[in-house]
Amino acid sequence: MASIKPSLAKGTRDFSPVEMEKRNHIYNTLKTIFKKYGYSEIQTPSFENLSTLTGKYGDEGDKLIFKILNSGDYLSKAPEKLLEDKNSTALISSISEKALRYDLTVPFARYVVMHQNDIALPFKRFQIQPVWRADRPQRGRYREFYQCDVDVVGSESLLNEAEFVLIYHEALTKLGLKDFNIKLNNRKILSGIAEVVGKPELIVDMTVAIDKLDKIGLEGVNKELLERGFTEADLGVLKPIIELSGSNQEKLNSLKSVLSNSAIGLKGIEEIETVFDYLEKLGQTAVLAKELEVDITLARGLNYYTGCIFEVKTNEVQMGSIGGGGRYDDLTGMFGLKDLTGVGVSFGADRIFDVLEELNLFPPSNADRTKVLIINFDKALESSTLPILYKLREAGIAAELYPSSVKLKKQMSYADSKQIPFVLLVGEEEVETGQLSLKNMDSGDQQKVSIENLLNILA
Amino acid sequence: MASIKPSLAKGTRDFSPVEMEKRNHIYNTLKTIFKKYGYSEIQTPSFENLSTLTGKYGDEGDKLIFKILNSGDYLSKAPEKLLEDKNSTALISSISEKALRYDLTVPFARYVVMHQNDIALPFKRFQIQPVWRADRPQRGRYREFYQCDVDVVGSESLLNEAEFVLIYHEALTKLGLKDFNIKLNNRKILSGIAEVVGKPELIVDMTVAIDKLDKIGLEGVNKELLERGFTEADLGVLKPIIELSGSNQEKLNSLKSVLSNSAIGLKGIEEIETVFDYLEKLGQTAVLAKELEVDITLARGLNYYTGCIFEVKTNEVQMGSIGGGGRYDDLTGMFGLKDLTGVGVSFGADRIFDVLEELNLFPPSNADRTKVLIINFDKALESSTLPILYKLREAGIAAELYPSSVKLKKQMSYADSKQIPFVLLVGEEEVETGQLSLKNMDSGDQQKVSIENLLNILA
Repeated sequence: MASIKPSLAKGTRDFSPVEMEKRNHIYNTLKTIFKKYGYSEIQTPSFENLSTLTGKYGDEGDKLIFKILNSGDYLSKAPEKLLEDKNSTALISSISEKALRYDLTVPFARYVVMHQNDIALPFKRFQIQPVWRADRPQRGRYREFYQCDVDVVGSESLLNEAEFVLIYHEALTKLGLKDFNIKLNNRKILSGIAEVVGKPELIVDMTVAIDKLDKIGLEGVNKELLERGFTEADLGVLKPIIELSGSNQEKLNSLKSVLSNSAIGLKGIEEIETVFDYLEKLGQTAVLAKELEVDITLARGLNYYTGCIFEVKTNEVQMGSIGGGGRYDDLTGMFGLKDLTGVGVSFGADRIFDVLEELNLFPPSNADRTKVLIINFDKALESSTLPILYKLREAGIAAELYPSSVKLKKQMSYADSKQIPFVLLVGEEEVETGQLSLKNMDSGDQQKVSIENLLNILA
Repeated sequence: MASIKPSLAKGTRDFSPVEMEKRNHIYNTLKTIFKKYGYSEIQTPSFENLSTLTGKYGDEGDKLIFKILNSGDYLSKAPEKLLEDKNSTALISSISEKALRYDLTVPFARYVVMHQNDIALPFKRFQIQPVWRADRPQRGRYREFYQCDVDVVGSESLLNEAEFVLIYHEALTKLGLKDFNIKLNNRKILSGIAEVVGKPELIVDMTVAIDKLDKIGLEGVNKELLERGFTEADLGVLKPIIELSGSNQEKLNSLKSVLSNSAIGLKGIEEIETVFDYLEKLGQTAVLAKELEVDITLARGLNYYTGCIFEVKTNEVQMGSIGGGGRYDDLTGMFGLKDLTGVGVSFGADRIFDVLEELNLFPPSNADRTKVLIINFDKALESSTLPILYKLREAGIAAELYPSSVKLKKQMSYADSKQIPFVLLVGEEEVETGQLSLKNMDSGDQQKVSIENLLNILA
């Protein structure tokens, strides 16, 4: 077998021990909080039947799904005509019946439908697994990346929405972020505005244009609205919406007067007020005042969401949204289970990783790491250190004995590279006196300690 | 989009919340122990370049690798002749350049070679990730399953082997197993025997035949050895090996006399004795006496392993091996990095799952689960429970308020199905008195508690 210079597949990454520690820090923080709010973990397989995934993500999405070649003589049943024509697209269904997960939403919908008789509604699940997309790789965009979704299906209560605000608040705060916004919109408000203007089909155009107020000013927005199909008369109606400002309550009050004739619009406002009311009763007035921001320019997932829409941004680092979600009314319709409402949010774990890295927020020392390395001087002394090694591990302390008596410098650099905080030196003198030399790798300090003392210091 | 009845891809599984709890119980137990022995987690991508995997698992293995179809117009560069001939095998390299991970060993070798300048040797890593094989699915055999590997490369020391014995001992004991054997062999002993008999090419045949002693007796083994190419004269030499019995030390002594003229055979014995010596100095005489068993019929990975070979079996349940491994001398040679020795073991997580299930060894209550469900009586009472919900979560207690005021029976059955151990009933009387009704779902007992008391009980 010829030796080849190995490389990673395009758009994929290895995760080193240090990177895994950091990733696990994020995942564990999130998981602990999800569980506290009653969400349970599930996992679905990495590949699904191609028919389960096809047609769910639009034509562009379908192209980005990684298809798995059938095993065995996969060409035997392929139509000759397609092979002759080299018709790549039409041939797919003949030679591939499986595909890699593209997101966690469709597999979750399949899960709910398949297990509908085993699960109790409301079903609260979280899922943290990789997904794969045949995107062109570029900085910060990978072909394999992790998604982290939390959803509850089978409950209309807006308590769920309020709890997602708290989950975001608690998770990001726990991870060390200090300045972020949880933006809240409601699809029904946008529908109400479009209804009032009489242009429901232009919802997205309207939202996108209004979103540019900060950058291009009222005149610029108006110009863009005209270009996107609105009339001068529409602009008059939209003016108070474009200029919406002030506190959340002030914004809602302005909207109430603009939408006074739109039942659906008023319903959207009422939903947001109910979320606020829950947060207040949960004692979260600080979150309400500081982090939560009504933002009717949130245009995320407008074809999918039917109620509240969330988006989360950090103000400490230049970065797109680090999370988002919303309420949907027809997650499982694609698999024949109609009218199951749900609401969910996701965390952009890769972006959160970059934010924590940039702000230096990862904890400096980590429980995952070896706490002490015992230096191996020679065969005879090695024997004397084995009982110490045993005692350390018996006390639950992650410990290693360097497995051979190479030069001290090499052993110390091993400790350095693994970021092991302590090194224990057991030479002849130490064996005789029972007083071991413990070196703190951070400060460089060295002290003599008994075994009992050692266990206390490292515990 | 037409609605389809969804199904899982053949040979794959969903993992429900209860299954995830159990799987995480196994993984977390293993991870904690691996870390205590100085092993760090890494992860590699789910797919690799096809060229990285091809040729590493033999022809049969190559067929079982799941290939990923190239994206876009994948047929454009496919040779017409191969399409015309429907030559599935030859066409693969033209239409697929990526493939799903088949095991964790080859990606680990690639990792070590690619990152050789960043990692400090000895490099101690563990890896718990799914692998995929296009096997025919059957009971207990899946197309997606998890492997769990622990390896150290760059250290010759037999302390590593001794520590793997302890890792097995500690992990299985911690998981609740009481009667298991860690079998130990050494490839060099088998080489020595084959050398003494003069038939090195028949090592595997010899080992397999001897392994049947219990089932078919000495005569049966001799018959099989003759069929497999050994002579009557060979049988005389092999007799003391076939009838090897007694304590580990007795077995080693017998082997020493049979192998007295084989340098490599004696080296193998010495290696096992060194492992024993380490275990003794680590204070593990009980493990030595009870669980560790020299077994020269271990034929696992004979084409790959060069020193010690491990295999672990439980005696409490009928089940194949639940773990195994050994020392190898050329892991990374396939990628051009020669002479890097290593030793590693793996845990059969799926089988261990089945064993724990059969022996009922999963912990009954789990930290992952919601601890208390607050019953939702009506809108007014809901408001009164929100501050309690907040206090519970603030104290780190996983708590839920049922999100709507449906019938009590339905709420109780929700608690049942999620196996929530406590239910809190806050009716009008409870709101007035501040004494809440807490129901233990296991015993059915109900008691009145203050909020402070509640926090203490559930903490």
